[in-house]
Amino acid sequence: MFKKILIANRGEIALRVIRACQEMGIATVAVHSTADSDAMHVRMADESVCIGPPPGTDSYLSVPSIVSACEVSGAEAIHPGYGFLSENAAFVQVLEDHNITFIGPSSEHIRMMGDKITAKETMRALGVPCVPGSEGGVPDLAEARRLADEMGYPVIIKATAGGGGRGMKLARSRSELDHAFQGARSEAKAAFGNDQVYIEKYLQKPRHIEIQVFGDGKGRAVHLGERDCSLQRRHQKVFEESPSPAIDAETRARIGKVCADAVGEMGYSGAGTIEFLYEDGEFYFIEMNTRLQVEHPVTEAVYRVDLVQEQIRVAAGEPMTLHQDDLTPVGHAIEVRINAEKLPEFRPSPGRIAAYHAPGGLGVRMDSALYQGYSIPPYYDSLIGKLIVHANDRPQALARLRRALGELIVDGIETTTPLFYDLLDQADIQTGDYTIHWLEKFLARKD
Amino acid sequence: MFKKILIANRGEIALRVIRACQEMGIATVAVHSTADSDAMHVRMADESVCIGPPPGTDSYLSVPSIVSACEVSGAEAIHPGYGFLSENAAFVQVLEDHNITFIGPSSEHIRMMGDKITAKETMRALGVPCVPGSEGGVPDLAEARRLADEMGYPVIIKATAGGGGRGMKLARSRSELDHAFQGARSEAKAAFGNDQVYIEKYLQKPRHIEIQVFGDGKGRAVHLGERDCSLQRRHQKVFEESPSPAIDAETRARIGKVCADAVGEMGYSGAGTIEFLYEDGEFYFIEMNTRLQVEHPVTEAVYRVDLVQEQIRVAAGEPMTLHQDDLTPVGHAIEVRINAEKLPEFRPSPGRIAAYHAPGGLGVRMDSALYQGYSIPPYYDSLIGKLIVHANDRPQALARLRRALGELIVDGIETTTPLFYDLLDQADIQTGDYTIHWLEKFLARKD
Repeated sequence: MFKKILIANRGEIALRVIRACQEMGIATVAVHSTADSDAMHVRMADESVCIGPPPGTDSYLSVPSIVSACEVSGAEAIHPGYGFLSENAAFVQVLEDHNITFIGPSSEHIRMMGDKITAKETMRALGVPCVPGSEGGVPDLAEARRLADEMGYPVIIKATAGGGGRGMKLARSRSELDHAFQGARSEAKAAFGNDQVYIEKYLQKPRHIEIQVFGDGKGRAVHLGERDCSLQRRHQKVFEESPSPAIDAETRARIGKVCADAVGEMGYSGAGTIEFLYEDGEFYFIEMNTRLQVEHPVTEAVYRVDLVQEQIRVAAGEPMTLHQDDLTPVGHAIEVRINAEKLPEFRPSPGRIAAYHAPGGLGVRMDSALYQGYSIPPYYDSLIGKLIVHANDRPQALARLRRALGELIVDGIETTTPLFYDLLDQADIQTGDYTIHWLEKFLARKD
Repeated sequence: MFKKILIANRGEIALRVIRACQEMGIATVAVHSTADSDAMHVRMADESVCIGPPPGTDSYLSVPSIVSACEVSGAEAIHPGYGFLSENAAFVQVLEDHNITFIGPSSEHIRMMGDKITAKETMRALGVPCVPGSEGGVPDLAEARRLADEMGYPVIIKATAGGGGRGMKLARSRSELDHAFQGARSEAKAAFGNDQVYIEKYLQKPRHIEIQVFGDGKGRAVHLGERDCSLQRRHQKVFEESPSPAIDAETRARIGKVCADAVGEMGYSGAGTIEFLYEDGEFYFIEMNTRLQVEHPVTEAVYRVDLVQEQIRVAAGEPMTLHQDDLTPVGHAIEVRINAEKLPEFRPSPGRIAAYHAPGGLGVRMDSALYQGYSIPPYYDSLIGKLIVHANDRPQALARLRRALGELIVDGIETTTPLFYDLLDQADIQTGDYTIHWLEKFLARKD
């Protein structure tokens, strides 16, 4: 096992990794920018190295600074957290060349999944369901009809040369197809000088469902069910839960097996997440994140695992301790992201924390790098805490979330906490009846 | 279900109950002494009533004050927490007469278990194992020999009229019995003018193992395994864990069934704990606590239950949701009691909390009524927080405990936190090899 690990990140995720290391008896090296000298991750690590000024490009994203911090401190491995360099294949390549272990997948897998076209082709070839489409130009209406009948309505016709919505037409039924096909062709011709169009299934009210996978790098892989992260604002998740209110055990087992088999076949190593749109019982691949997700704690709660310790074990060459037969979700977990933002505009709200008090008691986990007197610098992501609750079922988890929110005190700055009280009052949230469009519509109504 | 509950307690246990009520949508009434106006339980409850000055006898133990607080506020039920009035049969009788629901067992069961002789007789009759003994005077050496052979050595001979160790002799084997028997008789005669003696099995190195039980008041009862609370100082528990390092699944199921059957047969209602000494695979009944225990969170962690919500449900006449077949322990939980005490004398250390920061992250639960700026009054129990960790196995739970202790900040007063670091360093604690005498011996060695 590693004796010393460098954590190439900051904030709550740096603490998350430091905690795992401490519990495994591994020494920790924090890196920090000049703006983060007083940050909690610096205080909690065994040693720390200043790697430059803000913004991130001059410190947390600086490959040379981080590699030299690793060499100076004698750390054998780097945990990247999420964001920053966590999915940077070039960084991982440099570490591979320097004989520093990257706690995550190979640079090859990161590169493969980082390219959206290669990712989709790879996943399709591995049997992962993708959005059905013509995969190229459609020559005529007859072919368009055949394809649309095959994939089911609604379908969307898009200009091959297109972008920005031009040359894009929706057909909700066969009767609309002729008009949409011809319309898209004309628009494409006019806009791009090229009337070639392709056709894809159109998802009207999908949910964002993602499958947590874990591979041992030698062909064995497991899945740890799904997270429902449909509640998003500007593609940023704000409320995540596991299990999804929309997924039953049979569906979970089915898509989970497809994902585990795919990453096993790839020889994938460590934690990963395969993201899908989900509608009418079908999954459609979006992308794979080759790292730990912000929302991993909900999976840890319902599957009783420590994903970060498992990442470290597998990166160190120890056998993966996860076995599919032991992995059954118990209860229900919800995470809300506490951001330093002022509502209703979600405007960043950095500043000094005049008072901080974390919620406690049964079924409550707080992951945060806040402390009383800490000054949140203005240079980084506004996520300052994750409140995770776990209970026997979804209604109890919602009740526990409301209770725990009531105990949380973050004075001195504005946070997104009031949004979650609002959400808890909505019937759709209580019943779990929401799609990826729900939150934007809700916020628009409130304006 | 109740609309409003009064919590007749203070400190962390009052918070524990308020949290359960909030999650069930039940309004809460706090009661408090004049010394506790700024206490957290007052802040967290929906309303509060001042019931008198310290010490406890003039407020938290004042039955008339609490009953009138209940009537004034319109609370339908009272949760007593632990300590104070929680095992006071007369108080429960008063509530029964006033048509206020007591969240706990009947006054009859409290009274029965409050009298140690009746409790032992009742439990023995219900098949619960007790310390074997002559149950009365032993007329001569022959009878003493017969009994000692039956129960096994060592045995202890005690003066029937005795106390304070006089007229008490230990016999480790048959060869020592003659001398011990005659010696005890002579000492008894000299000390008490009565040479009658009785004989009991002597436990040399027992553990304190307690079984959590829960009854629906209608004859159905379950057990939730054991807690090992052997680590005690002056009969005060300081470190509790579940499962016990000394109990296997078969033993747990056997003693658990005996206990559940016993309380089922009694028609017992709500949470209770049957305490045993445990040595060489045998259990010996000590007493039954007819209330929630301080250390209940370790059971909640490994059995994934909310004991307080279940108490409230059953007291309200709803069916008990616990079923024996669903109750399987998962992982390992440890609780340590953070007391406001100065080591090494364990001298009370009340005062103002200059800084408070609770540990966070995976598998950590903090139950505490502390907050930054709070002044701990000198009138009450020194328990100010319970740190509970849960992990997949005992070594991981110990590692998590060490990690979480490192995050806990309680500045301005002295606490017992350093003791737990000390304990974690001991080989016997790491292996779980300790008895009820271990901690006293350890502390004596350190002096």
